[in-house]
Amino acid sequence: MIPDVAVNKEEQAYALLKADADKILQLIKVQIDNLTMPQCPLYEEVLDTQMYGLSREIDFAVRLNLVEEADGKKLLEDLERQLNVLHEASQKL
Amino acid sequence: MIPDVAVNKEEQAYALLKADADKILQLIKVQIDNLTMPQCPLYEEVLDTQMYGLSREIDFAVRLNLVEEADGKKLLEDLERQLNVLHEASQKL
Repeated sequence: MIPDVAVNKEEQAYALLKADADKILQLIKVQIDNLTMPQCPLYEEVLDTQMYGLSREIDFAVRLNLVEEADGKKLLEDLERQLNVLHEASQKL
Repeated sequence: MIPDVAVNKEEQAYALLKADADKILQLIKVQIDNLTMPQCPLYEEVLDTQMYGLSREIDFAVRLNLVEEADGKKLLEDLERQLNVLHEASQKL
């Protein structure tokens, strides 16, 4: 679950958060590939829940001084940006 | 936010999780003291969201090997037990 290259707690923490963010992105990609309607309220709810969970993990890591606040913020923003791109692309299908 | 006695990342992680659990308990106590209906759907939703957030933090700490899985599980179970006691007491008011 934690890549071998991650040697200390700080790197492990960031690698875990990044993996969780990628998991959310993957989940949304699968939903779009299967043509599940992104306008579906359940889809929005699942996404909101996942994003909230990730933000709580990031906040925890920041409070533990394992991850820089700016890095944590960027991780969440990058994911939101990628999700927006996916969402817009699915609208044009 | 982190008690001075917490010297290493493991102790800090547990102290943070414990503080977050206490915060949820406090939130529910305040709601009951103010006679907000525990049957209110919004109350349930807030509680579910908070519990989910805490469980994600605990899971993250466990995956990082900062907290023992059993300790994390016990923290969540203790909180649930305390919440149940509060909830039952409020029903008898």
